[in-house]
Amino acid sequence: MRVRESELIDKIHKALGRFRASHQVHLGVGDDAALFRPRKSHELILTCDWFLEGTHFLRDMHPPDSVGWKCLARALSDVAAMSGTPRCFLLSLALPTSLTGRWLDDFLGGLRRASRKFGCALAGGDTTYREEVLVNINVVGEVRTGYAVLRSGARTGDLIYVSGNLGEAELGLRILRRSRGPADTKNPLLKKHLYPEPRFELGQWLAEKRLVSAMMDLSDGLSSDLARLCAASDVGARLESERIPRVRGLDAARKHGLDPLELALHGGDDYELLFTVPSKNAMSMPRVFQGLKLRPIGRITQAAELVVCDESGRERQLVAGGWDPFRTDT
Amino acid sequence: MRVRESELIDKIHKALGRFRASHQVHLGVGDDAALFRPRKSHELILTCDWFLEGTHFLRDMHPPDSVGWKCLARALSDVAAMSGTPRCFLLSLALPTSLTGRWLDDFLGGLRRASRKFGCALAGGDTTYREEVLVNINVVGEVRTGYAVLRSGARTGDLIYVSGNLGEAELGLRILRRSRGPADTKNPLLKKHLYPEPRFELGQWLAEKRLVSAMMDLSDGLSSDLARLCAASDVGARLESERIPRVRGLDAARKHGLDPLELALHGGDDYELLFTVPSKNAMSMPRVFQGLKLRPIGRITQAAELVVCDESGRERQLVAGGWDPFRTDT
Repeated sequence: MRVRESELIDKIHKALGRFRASHQVHLGVGDDAALFRPRKSHELILTCDWFLEGTHFLRDMHPPDSVGWKCLARALSDVAAMSGTPRCFLLSLALPTSLTGRWLDDFLGGLRRASRKFGCALAGGDTTYREEVLVNINVVGEVRTGYAVLRSGARTGDLIYVSGNLGEAELGLRILRRSRGPADTKNPLLKKHLYPEPRFELGQWLAEKRLVSAMMDLSDGLSSDLARLCAASDVGARLESERIPRVRGLDAARKHGLDPLELALHGGDDYELLFTVPSKNAMSMPRVFQGLKLRPIGRITQAAELVVCDESGRERQLVAGGWDPFRTDT
Repeated sequence: MRVRESELIDKIHKALGRFRASHQVHLGVGDDAALFRPRKSHELILTCDWFLEGTHFLRDMHPPDSVGWKCLARALSDVAAMSGTPRCFLLSLALPTSLTGRWLDDFLGGLRRASRKFGCALAGGDTTYREEVLVNINVVGEVRTGYAVLRSGARTGDLIYVSGNLGEAELGLRILRRSRGPADTKNPLLKKHLYPEPRFELGQWLAEKRLVSAMMDLSDGLSSDLARLCAASDVGARLESERIPRVRGLDAARKHGLDPLELALHGGDDYELLFTVPSKNAMSMPRVFQGLKLRPIGRITQAAELVVCDESGRERQLVAGGWDPFRTDT
């Protein structure tokens, strides 16, 4: 069974093209390129993300619906990290002809749900043939000029915050790896791994209230990502281990011989926000924002090192142990 | 030898990051996303393009310098086709660690030359590890609001034009396939295949003078691309075969048993512009623009079919025979 490229584009267009989140996209799929009309007094946020079979997902384990959802959600998380609002995306898709039927339908179903939920319309893309599924998502977001929160603004004494619980996506991945066959999408412990949610509302609110000095999303794990934020800001950090919010599935973690603290420090794919709050703003910080926990987990320090301190005051160096594709031994 | 992702990003940043074609990109490589400040009264052109080892280039045949040049040039051609000006691009790159030395240096060298020549700055990207080289280029361009030329504006009676000679890139590819080892980058017959040049100046000039009714770039071959333009405009076309500009290397084509007309009709990768000109504008069309030939090759017709007519007036149907990745039997 062979399909032509034009048939594939039609299928994608039908699944996603009708939804227009924004009047700004006034020429989408079907010409050489998309046309986008930017809003006055706004800057554009540009980001792209790989989502590759064998590297970011496994064909026989991850439901295509989750692949579709997650490839967009994780790219959108970078827009949330800049306190922006997503506007439109381009889908670059390569796949074997054998997957252009049911698999593609389910993939597009998950992508459509994410597209609608997060208000980000398909504006175009590129498709080709490949034995393995390759996805690249390019997102355009907007932020009011001067309101983007960068990684480089953290100052000594600032409080370090995270949203949500850390390590839940990693726990889900570990459970999935030890199971057989396709993932049980009903299992709540897998939800964060299969269907992550970018934290737009939080990112936008923090920026509008001018509460934060630096921000990024947690994609590769706290130990790796905090190191990047500190490097960009030319500072260090001291975390208090007992304050770091951990997985809700503690029993499941222990059953699998996993240490919840290690999961929280090094687990990737959570797509929560990591941000720093100047001391003077600490009193204005809520403990919960729209049902999402916000927790101070330590402070920015002058010394260019990352340490974790336990309840008894013992310090240890925090070595980046999150995900680095060039370190993966596969 | 293993490199870390951060080292790879540093290398890319050093090779490309210093060049700022535009003050509009005021936050590039190094944060969650890039920030871009759009110009007033302009729309954005958004496009993305795969460039994959085994599909779009061969590692042992195509010099990495050409791979770097071409991956950007062909994405930029879509901006030219919309009569836009390129502003910045994102580079998504996956490669094996074995290619992170000399190969990557040469790749970045070609990419840098194209980036400078075409005034398009690196704004960000994503890198990961993969056994095969995968590239996805995402380009942001700009065009004065209302000046983008679409595929859908062709009307019955309009003249059909192309720039340059058609089939030269295909001829280069055929010569390359029959040779052994890496390509001879000095061979003028390979130039169009290895180092294509998007036609910005022409696209912008045609739009500013309001001379054209529809436009697109020739990436998959005239027979495939003209069919798309006609479908978008809901019209047909009648080409005069003797008017279609062919390869300069006629002897080389014949030596390889290739028919120059077939090369011109179905050969891909030329990145010339295909456009339609209302009859009333025909007198204003130059035969040459900045050294580049512009040739009328036929007319738009009402009947929804594409025909080619030879010198004796015999007509034959033009069947799309250009490149379709889902038809390639590899």
